[in-house]
Amino acid sequence: MDERVREHAAVLVDWSARVEAGDDVVVSVAEDAHDLGVAVAEALGERGANATTLYGSDELSRAYLKGAETRADGDRNGNDVDDDTDGVPDFDDDPAVDRALFEAADAYLRIGGGRNTTAAADVASETRQAYATARKGVREARMDTDWVSTVHPTRSLAQQAGMAYEEYRDFVYDAVLRDWEALADEMAQMKDALDAGEAVRIVTERDDAPDTDVTMSIAGRTAVNSAASVAYDSHNLPSGEVFTAPYDTEGEAFFDVPMTIDATRVRDVHLVFEAGEVVDFSAEAGEDALAGVLDTDAGARRLGELGIGMNRGIDRFTDSILFDEKMGDTVHMAVGRAYDACLPEGESGNDSAVHVDMISDVSTDSRMEVDGEVVRRNGTFRWEGEFGE
Amino acid sequence: MDERVREHAAVLVDWSARVEAGDDVVVSVAEDAHDLGVAVAEALGERGANATTLYGSDELSRAYLKGAETRADGDRNGNDVDDDTDGVPDFDDDPAVDRALFEAADAYLRIGGGRNTTAAADVASETRQAYATARKGVREARMDTDWVSTVHPTRSLAQQAGMAYEEYRDFVYDAVLRDWEALADEMAQMKDALDAGEAVRIVTERDDAPDTDVTMSIAGRTAVNSAASVAYDSHNLPSGEVFTAPYDTEGEAFFDVPMTIDATRVRDVHLVFEAGEVVDFSAEAGEDALAGVLDTDAGARRLGELGIGMNRGIDRFTDSILFDEKMGDTVHMAVGRAYDACLPEGESGNDSAVHVDMISDVSTDSRMEVDGEVVRRNGTFRWEGEFGE
Repeated sequence: MDERVREHAAVLVDWSARVEAGDDVVVSVAEDAHDLGVAVAEALGERGANATTLYGSDELSRAYLKGAETRADGDRNGNDVDDDTDGVPDFDDDPAVDRALFEAADAYLRIGGGRNTTAAADVASETRQAYATARKGVREARMDTDWVSTVHPTRSLAQQAGMAYEEYRDFVYDAVLRDWEALADEMAQMKDALDAGEAVRIVTERDDAPDTDVTMSIAGRTAVNSAASVAYDSHNLPSGEVFTAPYDTEGEAFFDVPMTIDATRVRDVHLVFEAGEVVDFSAEAGEDALAGVLDTDAGARRLGELGIGMNRGIDRFTDSILFDEKMGDTVHMAVGRAYDACLPEGESGNDSAVHVDMISDVSTDSRMEVDGEVVRRNGTFRWEGEFGE
Repeated sequence: MDERVREHAAVLVDWSARVEAGDDVVVSVAEDAHDLGVAVAEALGERGANATTLYGSDELSRAYLKGAETRADGDRNGNDVDDDTDGVPDFDDDPAVDRALFEAADAYLRIGGGRNTTAAADVASETRQAYATARKGVREARMDTDWVSTVHPTRSLAQQAGMAYEEYRDFVYDAVLRDWEALADEMAQMKDALDAGEAVRIVTERDDAPDTDVTMSIAGRTAVNSAASVAYDSHNLPSGEVFTAPYDTEGEAFFDVPMTIDATRVRDVHLVFEAGEVVDFSAEAGEDALAGVLDTDAGARRLGELGIGMNRGIDRFTDSILFDEKMGDTVHMAVGRAYDACLPEGESGNDSAVHVDMISDVSTDSRMEVDGEVVRRNGTFRWEGEFGE
């Protein structure tokens, strides 16, 4: 086994999830994530934790949902066996085992890495939505644990990234095996700037793309130093971003990093904000998918997140939000739901059924200001030596 | 996908586990059992059941136990972090997640089929025992569900059977895809004979092997018609045996079918019984492993089971007890623990930490009598046409 697999497991168990002896840990292992699952199991045994391992197979999930569709169609018995005749499966909204499982868990480690990132592409979106809605309670119980999501580098993910397998493995370990303590210290400076600030302005002026010039309020909001550890309210490995929950957005923003929404490729998104809302939008590709997102509900037209990518171990886009949004020299904004951790106690931020991140490369011809003071220019931060003028 | 995989899933879900809409079903999928896992997931979706899928990986289990051994060694921190210094890992005897999981489950479907049947060969037996002891509560919660154990044909199991992969698949499906209703009816005749009887005598006289001539009492005991369904108190797929819990065994028995005990090959076992106990024993190979079993505790020297193999879809020995003990033309006896289902309500039968089955080929020169009447001769039953003299 590649020694980096063991190092990845140690970072996940110790730095990210802070597992201690006696903890009840649920691990979900995707189809091709076996090796990291083995390394994590060994680490959990060594730490004196209990381990329960789920099989996180997209192909099994697809099969279950397709089976439910067949049931809803009434194909099997020649008549509809569901509670209604709308053709959409009804799912149990209190699945006892999954709820009991997560309620009893201290930590949940999700190891992605299937055999096919589009394994469930032929499941109807109504079916997915019905399933997701029914499993709200399970999701909440899962989010109440010290959960961390990571991926094992697989051929399927390498393919999605357009990379050779060996090249992709190097990419993943460069992103994951960092000096997280040092990065957390650096990110703390960005968090401090955002926590102290009232307004953020982001400007990008490049010859080959529409300008970005957008301002948003962050007064009263708390930034999260997302240092890939539950100790920092951070649940992704890798992480390496500082994010907050902005409001009252004004201006326009251009997102040049390609993304995938519901299996549709979306490119070169342009959004125009007035009084906090998206009032106009366009995309070079996938505009219908973008429109679908923005029309989900009222909150889908307002920002739920502003994130500053600070993980310089991530040096290219791989069509995976887990990595893309953390890349150094990037900024991202998400329409939709805001994270509670950014909001004052008891206050609810922007609410929506969606949370869709859009990313801009800010490595050239760009600046970010907090209360009029430039804190980042062309991807370089104020506290770094070569910040310049 | 081989259509037989879907048929296997349907037998498992409908005939064996009797899954109904709304049931909470836990499925454990071994490393190479993915395809059957997919077919079972689809069937569960179609039946309207909830599904939770565990990853039943022997390699992950081994890694966890090896990690625990490292912890017990105190290797990691240079000192013992366990509660004691005996070098044997301490395990939590109330692992909250696993207990909650099985307590909430209606059914548990275990799909075996790993990549290596000896994947955990280097785990110390003390470690296994400590783990098994700590997990008694979890095991009991699991046994309280409608549990069924089956296997997906894998290359690893084909290798253990000494067969080609394609050949082994045919073997498994011949054993699993039977007319279970018809077999259950046939086996009911054997169950009736055993339930009505007081004593069983088994005799084999072959020139090339030691004789068997053993008698045992079955008065007051209830035979199980093990028809591969929880509706018959039967938890194996395939099954196809009738078994009961004998006592007061006298005589000698020879077991010519090779077996594996704790990774040791054991062959040609000869046992001598007096007043219900094994008073002498030998084996052509693996005698030490046999001695280890018999010395486990007092109950390990008494029979816990007499089983009549009646599944003629199983036509060869494959070094897997799931199949071997159900083969037509065989009989097996197990030293150790008796099954509650064979005992009068409230009565406890032979108790032991072990249950080790030993199998005899009775296809020639043999007979089985119940209360002096021959019910099977050379593998053929009384109620079959060609029973003869």
